Amino acid sequence: MARYTNMDFLKFLLFEVHPIKDLFQYERFAHLDEEQTWMMIESAKLLADQEMAPYFKDMDENPVKYDGNGNVLTHPCLKRIITESASQGWIGASANFEHGGMQLPEMIFSTAHHIFQAANNGVEGYLGLSAGAAGLITSFGNIEQIGTYVPKIFSGEWQGTMALTEPQAGSSLSDITTSAKPLEGDLYSIKGQKIFISGGQHEACSNFVHLTLARIEGAPLGVKGISLFIIPKFRVNKNGDLEYNDVYCAGDFQKMGQKGYATTHLSFGDNNDCRGYLVGEPHKGLTYMFQMMNGARISVGMCAASVAMAAYQASLQYCLERPQGRIAGEKDPSKEPTLIINHADVQRMLFTQKAIAEGALSLGIECNKLYDLTHASSGDEKHQYWLLMEILTPIVKTYSSEHGSRSAALAIQTLGGYGFTTDFPVQQHYRDLKIMSLYEGTTGIQAIDLLGRKVTMEKGNALHILAKTIQSTIQEASEIESLKIAADQLAIEMKRIEQVLAKLYSYASAGQTEKYLSDATIFLEMMSFIVIGWQWLKMGILAAKKLANTSISQKEIDFYQGKLQTLAFYCKYELPHVEAFATTLLNEEDLTNMKNYAIFD
Amino acid sequence: MARYTNMDFLKFLLFEVHPIKDLFQYERFAHLDEEQTWMMIESAKLLADQEMAPYFKDMDENPVKYDGNGNVLTHPCLKRIITESASQGWIGASANFEHGGMQLPEMIFSTAHHIFQAANNGVEGYLGLSAGAAGLITSFGNIEQIGTYVPKIFSGEWQGTMALTEPQAGSSLSDITTSAKPLEGDLYSIKGQKIFISGGQHEACSNFVHLTLARIEGAPLGVKGISLFIIPKFRVNKNGDLEYNDVYCAGDFQKMGQKGYATTHLSFGDNNDCRGYLVGEPHKGLTYMFQMMNGARISVGMCAASVAMAAYQASLQYCLERPQGRIAGEKDPSKEPTLIINHADVQRMLFTQKAIAEGALSLGIECNKLYDLTHASSGDEKHQYWLLMEILTPIVKTYSSEHGSRSAALAIQTLGGYGFTTDFPVQQHYRDLKIMSLYEGTTGIQAIDLLGRKVTMEKGNALHILAKTIQSTIQEASEIESLKIAADQLAIEMKRIEQVLAKLYSYASAGQTEKYLSDATIFLEMMSFIVIGWQWLKMGILAAKKLANTSISQKEIDFYQGKLQTLAFYCKYELPHVEAFATTLLNEEDLTNMKNYAIFD
Repeated sequence: MARYTNMDFLKFLLFEVHPIKDLFQYERFAHLDEEQTWMMIESAKLLADQEMAPYFKDMDENPVKYDGNGNVLTHPCLKRIITESASQGWIGASANFEHGGMQLPEMIFSTAHHIFQAANNGVEGYLGLSAGAAGLITSFGNIEQIGTYVPKIFSGEWQGTMALTEPQAGSSLSDITTSAKPLEGDLYSIKGQKIFISGGQHEACSNFVHLTLARIEGAPLGVKGISLFIIPKFRVNKNGDLEYNDVYCAGDFQKMGQKGYATTHLSFGDNNDCRGYLVGEPHKGLTYMFQMMNGARISVGMCAASVAMAAYQASLQYCLERPQGRIAGEKDPSKEPTLIINHADVQRMLFTQKAIAEGALSLGIECNKLYDLTHASSGDEKHQYWLLMEILTPIVKTYSSEHGSRSAALAIQTLGGYGFTTDFPVQQHYRDLKIMSLYEGTTGIQAIDLLGRKVTMEKGNALHILAKTIQSTIQEASEIESLKIAADQLAIEMKRIEQVLAKLYSYASAGQTEKYLSDATIFLEMMSFIVIGWQWLKMGILAAKKLANTSISQKEIDFYQGKLQTLAFYCKYELPHVEAFATTLLNEEDLTNMKNYAIFD
Repeated sequence: MARYTNMDFLKFLLFEVHPIKDLFQYERFAHLDEEQTWMMIESAKLLADQEMAPYFKDMDENPVKYDGNGNVLTHPCLKRIITESASQGWIGASANFEHGGMQLPEMIFSTAHHIFQAANNGVEGYLGLSAGAAGLITSFGNIEQIGTYVPKIFSGEWQGTMALTEPQAGSSLSDITTSAKPLEGDLYSIKGQKIFISGGQHEACSNFVHLTLARIEGAPLGVKGISLFIIPKFRVNKNGDLEYNDVYCAGDFQKMGQKGYATTHLSFGDNNDCRGYLVGEPHKGLTYMFQMMNGARISVGMCAASVAMAAYQASLQYCLERPQGRIAGEKDPSKEPTLIINHADVQRMLFTQKAIAEGALSLGIECNKLYDLTHASSGDEKHQYWLLMEILTPIVKTYSSEHGSRSAALAIQTLGGYGFTTDFPVQQHYRDLKIMSLYEGTTGIQAIDLLGRKVTMEKGNALHILAKTIQSTIQEASEIESLKIAADQLAIEMKRIEQVLAKLYSYASAGQTEKYLSDATIFLEMMSFIVIGWQWLKMGILAAKKLANTSISQKEIDFYQGKLQTLAFYCKYELPHVEAFATTLLNEEDLTNMKNYAIFD
C-alpha cells in the first residue's frame, strides 16, 4: 500500500515536540500513558489501512448521489467504515467517562483522525462531525438530550451534523432566518432551509441529529437572537419509537472534490411538523456553536495538513522511483537517466511540501494539546492556554488550507503530466484540499477573526502570550550553535509584527475600522509564516538535541537531520516573504475600498 | 450568457498597449487594417458565444472516453465546432497566402484563440494543435508534404498533433527511443510508443497527422539524433486512396481537468506497417520541433491567462450580484446586507485576479506581436525581436500558468462554498488550469530554459534587450506624475536582477553548473513579477495619457482608472515579493543537493 502519512513523524510530534506526558499530570488524563496512547494510534493506522485508504479513489469516482426523492446514496463501504470506526472509539473516545467516552486527549484523537484524513479525507468527515455534534450536546444539552442522542452517535448508528448556513446568508450568521416557534418546554416548531450541510441525510446511518441554529419568534435581530436546537430526522416519541420529524433532504451538491462526502440541502418543516429541542438557554446558540466551530476550525486545519501530507508522501515515493533526465551540467546522453529526486528543483518542491505539511501538522497538534490543557487545567493557567489556542485557531485553519493547496500543486508538479491524471492520487488531494479554505469560515473570515477579535482580545493578551511563547523558543534555539541563524532570523521577523501592528492600530484608534481590517488576510499570511517558522524552530531544537547524542541509530540521524534541513530550507525560501507582507501592510494606500464598481471591468 | 472575457480590454491591448498598426508597415501584413482585424475578433467572439461557451460544462461532465478498441469518443458537438472554426479561418488564417492562409498576424489569431480558450479551453486545444502542426509542415516540409496535409488540416477534416513524449523519457527528449528505419526516399518504417498526445485519434476528425520525433537507426545518441516525421493515421497511397498506417490509439488518459480534450496513448507500428515521412533533414528534428514548441509555449501561457480571465469574469459577476454581510465596523443587523464587492477582502481578491489575468494576457499579446515582428522584419531588427521573444517565452508560459491557478483559486474563494460546487464554472477553471504548468515543459523545465539558455544566450544579449526595453518604459512612465511611484518601484526591483545575476554568475564561472541552476525556478518567479509589473506600467502609461484627455466618456474614464488602480495594487501587493525572491537567491546555502534521500522521510 502507498504510504499516506509518516508514523515516525507522528511519534516525534506526540512524544518529543509536544510531549503528551505534560497532560498525564492532570486528573483528566491520569489514567493514560505513552505506550497506551501510541497503541491506539497504531490501531487507528491499521483501521485506515484496511478500511479507508483502499476506497479513497473509488469513492471519488463513484460520488455520493441524490436520488431525487430525499435520499442520498453513499458508497457501499461507508456504513461499515462508520460502524468499525465507532466501535474502536473514533467518534466518542475523547468524551468524558460519564458520557461513555474514554477521556482520550484530543492530541491522540486528532492524530488518529489525521491518519484517517490522510487515508481518505471525505470519510473522516462523517466521523469528525458526529464527534463535534456529540461534544456540543454533552457540553450544553440536558441529561435527557445527552441520554437520547449521544450513545447513538457514539455507536455510529446516528450521524451528527452542524446546520448553520442558509442560502441567503452564507457566512453572515446574523442574517439566518430559520424560525423556531415555542410549543412546550424545550420543544419548538422549526421552519427553514439549510445548505452545505456536510454528512446531511444519507443512507449509511439510520438517523440524523442536526445541531441547528435558528431564531426563536420575537428574538433580537443579529447574532444575539440565535438559538441552538437539536433537530433529529426521526424524533423519539413518548413510546420510545422513532417518527419522521419533517426534515427533508432536498438535494446534494455536486463538487470538484470530496465527492464521497455528502453536502446536502435540508428543508425543515415543509409540512409544519418539524420539532426542534432547544439546547441550553435561548439566544445563546452562537456562543455554544462556537465551541464546536473552534474545534471544527482546528480540525479543518488538521485535515488540510493531512491531505497535504498524503500528497507529499505520494510525491516523494514517485520521485524515489522515477528515473528521468540527467542532473544540470551533465550532457552525456549515454549516461543512464538519474532518479528525479536528484534534480535540485525536485528537491526544492519536496522540501516545500515537507515544510508545509509537517509544519502545519505540528501546529495542529500544538492546538489540540492546548485544547487538552484548557480542558484539564483550571484558573489562570487554563485561561492562558485558552488564549493561546484562540489566537492560533485562525492561523492553523488558514495556513494549512491555503498552503496545503500550494503543497498539493507541487505534488502534482513533481509527477509531471502523470500528476494530472487519475492514475495517481495527487490530483484528488489537490481537488479535495480546495474546500478547506472555505469550510467553517473562509480565509477572509478567519483573517477578520484574527485581526478583529483575537489580536485585540483582552487588550492584546492573547497576542502577548503567543509572542512570549515564540520568544522563549527563539531564546532556547539561540543557545544551540546549529540553530543560531534560524533563531536570529525568526527574531527579526517577529519584530515586524510590532511595526505592522503599530501602523494598523493607528487606523483603529482613528476609528477607521474598515481600513484597520482591509488587509487582514495579508496580516494573517504574515503571522502564519512566523508561526510555522516557530513550529520548525521547535522541531529543530528537538532534532539538534537528539543529534548531540552520539548513541542514536543512522535512521534516527537521518530523521533528525531532515528536520534541521527543512528548518534551514524554510528560513531560506519561505521566511523572506514575511518582509514582503510587512511592506504591503505598512503601505498606507487604501486601494480596496472602491465605490465605483465599473473600474473592475 | 455569462461573460468570459472583456472585449474592451482586448481592444485596448491590440490598438493601444501593443498597437497592431506597427505591423501594417511590413509587406507581410500590408493588406490589413485595424477595422478589418477587429471585425475578425468580433466574429470569433460570436463563434465562441454560439458554439463553444455553451458546451464548456457539458464537455466536462461528459468526458472524452476510450472505447477499448482504438477509438476515442468525443462530445457530439466537437466535429461541428472544428468544422465551423476551420471554415472561419481559425486553424489556417495566420499561414502564408501561398499555403492557403490569410497572413493574419498571430496577435489577431491568438486573440481569437484567447476568446475560444476563455469560452472553452479544451475545445481550443484541437484547433491550436492543428494550426501548430500545419505551421511546422509549411516551415520545414517539402511541397508534396505541404500539398498533401496542410489543406486537409486547415479545413478541419484532419487533425494535426505533436508527438514527443514517451513513457520512459517524459520531459527528457534526449532519451526518446521511437525508431525510424529507412525504406526509400523520405519514407521510414516507424516503431514506438508516445503518451500524452493531445488531440490524439478521436472520432471528430477523419484522419490524424502526427508530427512525431523519432530516431533514425544509427543516429547519434541524445537530442542530436532526433528527426521529425509526419506520421498519418491513414496514409495516402499511390492511387490517392487512404490506407491504415498502423497507428493505434491504445488509450486515453483520464484527467482532473480538460476532460473534453483527448489525451491519448499512441502505438506506432505494432504490425510493422507504420510509415513515417521525414520532414527536412535527418537529425534536425528537435530544432524544427522547437519552432512549434515555442509557439505552443506562448499559446499555453495565453490559454492559462484566458482561463484565469474567464474565472475572473465569473467571480466579478458573482460579487456584483451577491449580497452578504455588512462592511467592517457596521454592527447594526437591521441594515440590509451589502453586496460582497463592498468588502475590502473581496476587492483584494478581485484586484489580484485582475492583475494576474490582464497582466498575463498583455504579456501574451506582447509575445505574439514579437512573433509577428520577427516574421515580418529582417536582418538585425528581426534578430532583436527574436531575442526578446525568446527570453519572454518561458516567462509568459510559467507566470500565466502558475499565477493563473492562484487567480482561479481566488475566484473560487470569492464565491465561498458555491465556488466548490459544479453549479459554477470557477471550479472547472481551477481544475483545467492545473495542466498549464505541465504542458510543453513543466515550470522546472521553463526555469532552466530561462536561466540556463535564454539569460546566457549571445553573451546575455536577450536579457540586455529586455532590460533596455523595460527601462525605456520606466523612463516614459517616470515623466508622468501619476506613474512616478510605480516607475521608481519597478526601477528598484530591476536593480535586484543585476545583483542576483552577479551572484549566480559567480557559481557558473566557478564551474558550479548545478548550483547556478538550482534555484532557477525562484529566478523565473522573480523575473516574472518584474515583467508583469512592466506590462502594468505600459498599460498605466496608456491609461494616464487617455485620462489626460478631457473629452473622454465616463465609461472610458472608469476603464482607464481601473488600469491605474490595478497598477497601484500590483505595486503594493505583488511587487514587494521580488525582494523576497532576491533574498532567497542571494542566500548561498546549498540545500537542494541532498544525496541521502532518507532525510526526506
